[in-house]
Amino acid sequence: MASIKDVAKEAGVSVTTVSRVMNNRGYLSKEVRKKVEKAIEVLDYHPNQIARALQKNQSFFIGIIVPDSNHPFFSDLIKYVEISANEQNYKLLICNSLEDPQKEAHYISMLRQNQVDGIIMCSHTMNIESYQKVDLPIVSFDRFIAAHIPCVGSDNYRGGELATEHLIQLGCKRLLHISGPLDLDVLSNRRRDAFVITCMKHGLDYDIIEGAHNKLTFDYFWSFITENLSPDKLRTYDGIFCSNDIAAYALFIYAEQQGIRVPEQLRIIGYDYHSFTRMLQNPKLTTIMQPSERIGKTLTNTLIQMIEHKSGELINNITVDVTLIQGDTT
Amino acid sequence: MASIKDVAKEAGVSVTTVSRVMNNRGYLSKEVRKKVEKAIEVLDYHPNQIARALQKNQSFFIGIIVPDSNHPFFSDLIKYVEISANEQNYKLLICNSLEDPQKEAHYISMLRQNQVDGIIMCSHTMNIESYQKVDLPIVSFDRFIAAHIPCVGSDNYRGGELATEHLIQLGCKRLLHISGPLDLDVLSNRRRDAFVITCMKHGLDYDIIEGAHNKLTFDYFWSFITENLSPDKLRTYDGIFCSNDIAAYALFIYAEQQGIRVPEQLRIIGYDYHSFTRMLQNPKLTTIMQPSERIGKTLTNTLIQMIEHKSGELINNITVDVTLIQGDTT
Repeated sequence: MASIKDVAKEAGVSVTTVSRVMNNRGYLSKEVRKKVEKAIEVLDYHPNQIARALQKNQSFFIGIIVPDSNHPFFSDLIKYVEISANEQNYKLLICNSLEDPQKEAHYISMLRQNQVDGIIMCSHTMNIESYQKVDLPIVSFDRFIAAHIPCVGSDNYRGGELATEHLIQLGCKRLLHISGPLDLDVLSNRRRDAFVITCMKHGLDYDIIEGAHNKLTFDYFWSFITENLSPDKLRTYDGIFCSNDIAAYALFIYAEQQGIRVPEQLRIIGYDYHSFTRMLQNPKLTTIMQPSERIGKTLTNTLIQMIEHKSGELINNITVDVTLIQGDTT
Repeated sequence: MASIKDVAKEAGVSVTTVSRVMNNRGYLSKEVRKKVEKAIEVLDYHPNQIARALQKNQSFFIGIIVPDSNHPFFSDLIKYVEISANEQNYKLLICNSLEDPQKEAHYISMLRQNQVDGIIMCSHTMNIESYQKVDLPIVSFDRFIAAHIPCVGSDNYRGGELATEHLIQLGCKRLLHISGPLDLDVLSNRRRDAFVITCMKHGLDYDIIEGAHNKLTFDYFWSFITENLSPDKLRTYDGIFCSNDIAAYALFIYAEQQGIRVPEQLRIIGYDYHSFTRMLQNPKLTTIMQPSERIGKTLTNTLIQMIEHKSGELINNITVDVTLIQGDTT
């Protein structure tokens, strides 16, 4: 492989000059620049970024740890993180924790050993203390970890409020919320809080059933719903807010099988509006959109700001707006 | 951050001994090993893998270039590539070409500069010559590039044959194939070839309509189908084989809107059986499964074999079996 010396020789200039061209530093005539660029092309020269990383103590790698890169929400998020990182010259390493605390710890250690400049943390199975020990810039998605670790998420409380108000405005009186696990302190629990407060405000009765950890698939929600909601019990509700779209879809299919008409007899609203929901035509789900493109870009930009200590300003937690998407299920 | 010297001091052994423990080389008593492991833990020592990469001339990074990491097929594939790479101690860098040849070239150059050990190439917009120049191990998904670049894919011909035979056995007489772009020499074109040959073998008439490049979304296939298949024309067919599930789903929704009953009046079969299709309940698509888990693992293992020159054996092209999944649309 060609080295920087070969390039200098080919262009008839010094190694320092080649380096100045490549780093775009110092005064250089157009002519010299062209000669060097030509030599780089002719020799098919690729600077060794790993060696530069070691020298500069910056690798331009960032890591992202997700529960499952194949889940439609995280798959959306990864795409926008990658595009936005690439625009700023950073490369993205992806890690699937599969919601296993040991795997999560292994990945954090691996990322540190590989000198990533920072980590976007979207999997939350470890204790808060374990993250606090990591001496690297971290941005967290949807969980408060520590004062020096900014958190980016959608406005979960507002989303829960929008969803519940929507059902109530349509005349629902017997409400149910199907939530994720509530024992972990993650921001998506605010959806439940908003559901409770909004029902109370309107003097309405409500129920909550709570899903388990590590479970994001259709098959899980199908078993969960069919086991926890007998057809008779299901008929006692006229409005159900699901904390994610996959649960809402499983619920819709179940209600249909029981001969319950949606939305006439039962209104269903989900949460996410990720790529799966966008493609789904039958039904088009009514749901709350978490804008994955904006969240992905914000996670990336916040992390890069921290890495580059841009102006040493305070880095704050960031909340991204949510929107109600009207579909056919309410 | 702790250095290897600190670990040696803490454990009361030499740096060489620490290095031998970490590389699991040479004879070491259990006692010494325990002392070193304890010191590593106490000091929270993380070896600098970047420095080691530079020394050893191997980074343990591999890159994967896909058209869109968010498309359900590639999102499936990436998950299994990542899991399988991680099991073998390799880290995965992901790149979205968005089917733009310039972006593809940029990513290849970036990956080389970052000393990845090899590349899994799933985006195919450049000329074959451009890949042949890359002096790194490459494995290609679904496209023959060169003799020294192994290609992994599902048995596209067999898949096309299974799909077409299935329609014919069910009594279909007027067949249509909705394909991807056929001008690029990619292996998925074998689905079309098998469709043609199978129709000819049975003496049946057939039509083909051909989709465009760079288009993988539901919205694209929706416009494409509604523009290229008037309701009257659609009624002339009784069996349609779509070269992917998203097109098959769009076609199903369109047929339903036209009052055409599936499968009674029109049978539809797709191709892929990726995470979107698996979650889809209404309809459950009849389709050909490309096993993304097996393809992902095979891509990764083949690349790692090339990187590690295991036994210097010949690395061949690999074809993975496909299966017919019976759903409600045929």
